[in-house]
Amino acid sequence: LIDPVDRTVDRDISLVKELGLKLVYAVNTHVHADHVTGSGLLKSKLPGAKSIISKASGAEADLFVEHGDKIPFGDLFLEVRSTPGHTSGCVTYVTGDELHQPRPRLAFTGDALLIRGCGRTDFQGGSSEQLYHSVHSQIFTLPKDTFVYPAHDYRGFSVSTVGEEVEFNPRLTKDREGFKRIMADLKLAYPKMIDVAVPANLVCGLQ
Amino acid sequence: LIDPVDRTVDRDISLVKELGLKLVYAVNTHVHADHVTGSGLLKSKLPGAKSIISKASGAEADLFVEHGDKIPFGDLFLEVRSTPGHTSGCVTYVTGDELHQPRPRLAFTGDALLIRGCGRTDFQGGSSEQLYHSVHSQIFTLPKDTFVYPAHDYRGFSVSTVGEEVEFNPRLTKDREGFKRIMADLKLAYPKMIDVAVPANLVCGLQ
Repeated sequence: LIDPVDRTVDRDISLVKELGLKLVYAVNTHVHADHVTGSGLLKSKLPGAKSIISKASGAEADLFVEHGDKIPFGDLFLEVRSTPGHTSGCVTYVTGDELHQPRPRLAFTGDALLIRGCGRTDFQGGSSEQLYHSVHSQIFTLPKDTFVYPAHDYRGFSVSTVGEEVEFNPRLTKDREGFKRIMADLKLAYPKMIDVAVPANLVCGLQ
Repeated sequence: LIDPVDRTVDRDISLVKELGLKLVYAVNTHVHADHVTGSGLLKSKLPGAKSIISKASGAEADLFVEHGDKIPFGDLFLEVRSTPGHTSGCVTYVTGDELHQPRPRLAFTGDALLIRGCGRTDFQGGSSEQLYHSVHSQIFTLPKDTFVYPAHDYRGFSVSTVGEEVEFNPRLTKDREGFKRIMADLKLAYPKMIDVAVPANLVCGLQ
């Protein structure tokens, strides 16, 4: 499970059990500011499951990953790509590129790249310059038919493709300076749950 | 587009245009009681698009379909299966079963079959006996790997499969009498929007 949320843990466990699956990893793309990870609850309810987050996140977990690592599960694996900018520890998980892996590839981008948008860059070590570089070097270089599954969508979409975002993302199609201006001018409110969520998520893997 | 909603018409049109598509049909599975169809708005904003609903729905539209009809678009088609029970005019649209059609097949079930649930059967000509027969004869007979896309989900799921619902649907795995008892005991509230939505949706195709 990628980016599980505390409130939907029972729903997720029920599906895992129905399908006869064994949860091996609760994988986080970053330390979320807007909800509490389900990693700890999943671990307590499904013994054997381990939590994963990037070493650069500064959070606690059972296993830490870095750019270039591969996370094996079943016959498949997830490739770890470092995509900081929304937070300093954000990573994107991409399915493998070998012949027996899923086609098209799937990219789980967290809040680095959203559908026609991207995560904010004004706290938690965020940097618009870094995010621009991350998306252009690590995500937009994937095959155009790669499916993009972000951590959020506020309009009801659930999937996009690299090709669509390269062409239509209203922020990331701009040049670097244009992107930085857009991000600097967003004037977003302080996230309601950040003072609860960030401390909880920093120890996601151990509680 | 299947079951477009008035509030998301601008979102949908923007995606249709970005992808360079031409909308030929706004297709409705039934006369919805909980939201207003986007068919009329889509037609006014995308000239050439036509609205479709079942003849049995009693609603107005540009084109009416019946069990067994095929709706062609591009190189593909949707097959119309009559699945009354939630309303008397409900249909399920299923992608074609020929070799060049999508694999696995896709079934758009409206409110007849939901993920681990089903639509209510206590108004708009609903009948639990009829719904049980519809789902068992028209949906559960599809290949097990057929993807099921219902018109709603209240827990954040967006897709299931025929195989999963045949095995795990807590209502429709019961025998007919057990299912009828469950549906009779639901005691659901009167839908908030029904007095606005049903009259509007009965003329969906013409306004």
